[in-house]
Amino acid sequence: MDAISRTWSATADAHAPVRFADACLRGAAQVMLQNNPVTGLLILAAIGWGTIRTGTAEVGAGALVGLLAGTGTALLLRVDATSWRQGLFGFSPLLTGAALPTFLAAEPVLWAYVVLGAAVTTVVTLALSNVLNSWGVAALTFPFVLTSWFLLMGAYQFMRIGPGALSRPALPAATPAELAHVPVTFEFLATGTLKGIAQVFLLDDWVSGAVILVALAVNSRAVALAAILGSAVGTALAIGLGADGTAIGKGIWGFNAVLTALALGAVFYRPMPAVAVYTLLATITAVWVQAALTTVLAPYGIPTLTAPFVVATWLFLLPKRHFAPVPHHERHGDGTMLSTPAAPPRRS
Amino acid sequence: MDAISRTWSATADAHAPVRFADACLRGAAQVMLQNNPVTGLLILAAIGWGTIRTGTAEVGAGALVGLLAGTGTALLLRVDATSWRQGLFGFSPLLTGAALPTFLAAEPVLWAYVVLGAAVTTVVTLALSNVLNSWGVAALTFPFVLTSWFLLMGAYQFMRIGPGALSRPALPAATPAELAHVPVTFEFLATGTLKGIAQVFLLDDWVSGAVILVALAVNSRAVALAAILGSAVGTALAIGLGADGTAIGKGIWGFNAVLTALALGAVFYRPMPAVAVYTLLATITAVWVQAALTTVLAPYGIPTLTAPFVVATWLFLLPKRHFAPVPHHERHGDGTMLSTPAAPPRRS
Amino acid sequence: MDAISRTWSATADAHAPVRFADACLRGAAQVMLQNNPVTGLLILAAIGWGTIRTGTAEVGAGALVGLLAGTGTALLLRVDATSWRQGLFGFSPLLTGAALPTFLAAEPVLWAYVVLGAAVTTVVTLALSNVLNSWGVAALTFPFVLTSWFLLMGAYQFMRIGPGALSRPALPAATPAELAHVPVTFEFLATGTLKGIAQVFLLDDWVSGAVILVALAVNSRAVALAAILGSAVGTALAIGLGADGTAIGKGIWGFNAVLTALALGAVFYRPMPAVAVYTLLATITAVWVQAALTTVLAPYGIPTLTAPFVVATWLFLLPKRHFAPVPHHERHGDGTMLSTPAAPPRRS
Repeated sequence: MDAISRTWSATADAHAPVRFADACLRGAAQVMLQNNPVTGLLILAAIGWGTIRTGTAEVGAGALVGLLAGTGTALLLRVDATSWRQGLFGFSPLLTGAALPTFLAAEPVLWAYVVLGAAVTTVVTLALSNVLNSWGVAALTFPFVLTSWFLLMGAYQFMRIGPGALSRPALPAATPAELAHVPVTFEFLATGTLKGIAQVFLLDDWVSGAVILVALAVNSRAVALAAILGSAVGTALAIGLGADGTAIGKGIWGFNAVLTALALGAVFYRPMPAVAVYTLLATITAVWVQAALTTVLAPYGIPTLTAPFVVATWLFLLPKRHFAPVPHHERHGDGTMLSTPAAPPRRS
Repeated sequence: MDAISRTWSATADAHAPVRFADACLRGAAQVMLQNNPVTGLLILAAIGWGTIRTGTAEVGAGALVGLLAGTGTALLLRVDATSWRQGLFGFSPLLTGAALPTFLAAEPVLWAYVVLGAAVTTVVTLALSNVLNSWGVAALTFPFVLTSWFLLMGAYQFMRIGPGALSRPALPAATPAELAHVPVTFEFLATGTLKGIAQVFLLDDWVSGAVILVALAVNSRAVALAAILGSAVGTALAIGLGADGTAIGKGIWGFNAVLTALALGAVFYRPMPAVAVYTLLATITAVWVQAALTTVLAPYGIPTLTAPFVVATWLFLLPKRHFAPVPHHERHGDGTMLSTPAAPPRRS
Repeated sequence: MDAISRTWSATADAHAPVRFADACLRGAAQVMLQNNPVTGLLILAAIGWGTIRTGTAEVGAGALVGLLAGTGTALLLRVDATSWRQGLFGFSPLLTGAALPTFLAAEPVLWAYVVLGAAVTTVVTLALSNVLNSWGVAALTFPFVLTSWFLLMGAYQFMRIGPGALSRPALPAATPAELAHVPVTFEFLATGTLKGIAQVFLLDDWVSGAVILVALAVNSRAVALAAILGSAVGTALAIGLGADGTAIGKGIWGFNAVLTALALGAVFYRPMPAVAVYTLLATITAVWVQAALTTVLAPYGIPTLTAPFVVATWLFLLPKRHFAPVPHHERHGDGTMLSTPAAPPRRS
């Protein structure tokens, strides 16, 4: 495996088209914060399988076009080469490209929308990264969220673009009587939890979720574990609080919890008991924030996308600089927290 | 008094439980930006009296639980010890703990909500402080506002949590015909103004307001004066512009004005004529912002909480770094403005 | 011309009232990001002509009062003298002063509203500039937008202020059947495009637009060209996507595009082919953002004002620091992008 990996890297260094393909594969993996072309390849396979199986091939095509257009735009804008090679300019445009065909009925101009949306997502990635660098925090998927919200909400003003699969704009109901009952069976929980992973890519398909889980395990077992636990926590909490059963069954209450658990529990902080507790609180917060944003967006009929993940993760990443005088080690350039007090105190 | 104060401090230094109690008392006082355990004790007494008198003991209990849980969470997160001792991690969770039982009917899970809400408020305090430190501005009560908004707005998505005392979601009415008439009598103005102070803690009780006024005067007469003047300005402006009389009578148009007047007129800037004029403009702005946010939140049926105070105070604190080349002195590490031109010019 | 200019500057240096007049004239020009008193004088003439011709003299008077009150408030707050002389404290209050009489029916208190609104706009200018300086980005017209949104949305809470010309609050319609048909004639396009320039000042009058175009050309032909092209792109895109024909005819889809094209294409970046493409993408984005914000604000019945310009311009200005390792020159202290690779790499 290591030899193959070295050969691939050397080939990518030498040939521009391979380098571009490598950046795109890593871009697909970076949606789940992984920097590994094999993980990306498996994720693209999951997207292909899932969208064909659910009869939404245009969503899969949109994801691919978004990934290519966003990564290409970044090349034209001559962004930082190292970040580009790690796929950091591919993941948000991929999601923009998947979201637009999912929610809009914009037949004649849809593909212009996808390409322009992916290009703008890349510009927004640069803009938000510049702002957030001040606090050492990543933009995560917020460039995708912001760009897609603009495009989806704008649809109401134009006759040539239909709101397609957007919900009907409505004020939040004080008595949510129409919520569906949840059949708490093993099958419901298992498929709901796997769909929670698939919904990161807007896929309502548990097999795709399982493939993505394998894709994560290829790169890191801790990340795969955090993903499945996050989805389970989100789904269980939604059942416990009495959310709509249909949405729970589709994995809607899982995907933000998946990303939050994975980001805090296995990527930005070093896995350890205190971090696990902290990550659990963050994952619960992501579910709350998702409920709140669902209410906020109800009058516009648009989805929260991954905004709850971004908000919860930012809120639980930003305090790290305040843990002084707790001594802390750095990791991945992102810092760790609540570590053993052996190292000398440090304020970043 | 000074001897008692020294004894108390020495006891707190020596014994962890007393230190915790001291931090909690100061936390209650910090809602009004005061660092004084006696002020905190009187404020807790006012909350106890007010909530029992108005038959809302669960609000008082929530405030206490929030204060303890928030201060305790901060201890677990090993925050900066000096800030913790000053009560800076207690005031926002106290308010979260008071707000949730006020607005939600969440019987079985209410207390889990209060404890988790207080813990998350502490994390948000750390996050926002990190961000706002870039401009030398405090987070004020915004961690409480943000966390409570999330929890209140999320309630619409879950069957097990009822919106309780939240307003019915509605679009803002172009012709607010249902506004109640205001009986402008001395009694109405006096109780309305005192209730404006009590409403900082969500209390609809003028006696509590009077006790809180005494609690402030114990620490600083200038602060008490700014509080009562702020409430009077807010109430008078609301009457003058024709706001709903019932809300005015409950002190709803006073509490954001109270906090803004107190923060700018007596805490962050040194009291002097120019600062008084600047603070008056800020207090009027707080009332405008409260009206605007009331409109913004109408479709969700949730209250502004103290967001208008936070927005107005941030807007009038942030310019301080731009008063150069006006010479200015520093005070409390927060800076003063428009001072006499005796000191040499300084840019912070 | 140069001699006159020198004489005028010398007179302004020597006499405070002339200095104040100069700052106000430049303030009128700074709405379009120009620092030239003649441009300002022509713009004020256009406002006078346009508001008298359309029977809205109170809007013209409001603009003038706002300009004077905002510039005067800045003087009282002893702001940075150089910025003040360039009119940087006049343009946002001018717009606040024009917007309030346009949208509110607030007869008895309207002028107090305009003066206080202009004063608060100046404070907000200082506050936002302090925040945005961290990333080397200007506040643009956002102080106007924020202050005016607060004042307009607050109107619903007060009986003494009527929402006047605000739209009826409504949820966004899934099927915008009521959109008017567009008569795509040369006259429609020409007047719509010129009105797009006039609408920067809330003027529905093509002659005013033509005068403002001349005012821009007096200072810079590139700026005038960017303005007319921006308005044409915005109008054409709105027609192409099927926006409401009545609004297109009034220039409503032009003014944010005008400001975005002008700011990015001729002021902040050095005009060149790559910048032209980048600016075109930004201008299209401004139209999208305008559509999205129109949807967001529909439940409140308030207009987007120039927020779409601000958002799009910030998003396309902020990446500049990320164009490293692309070598770039600085210009006007604001930086340029995608320049020739002659200069050595630099990271700001």
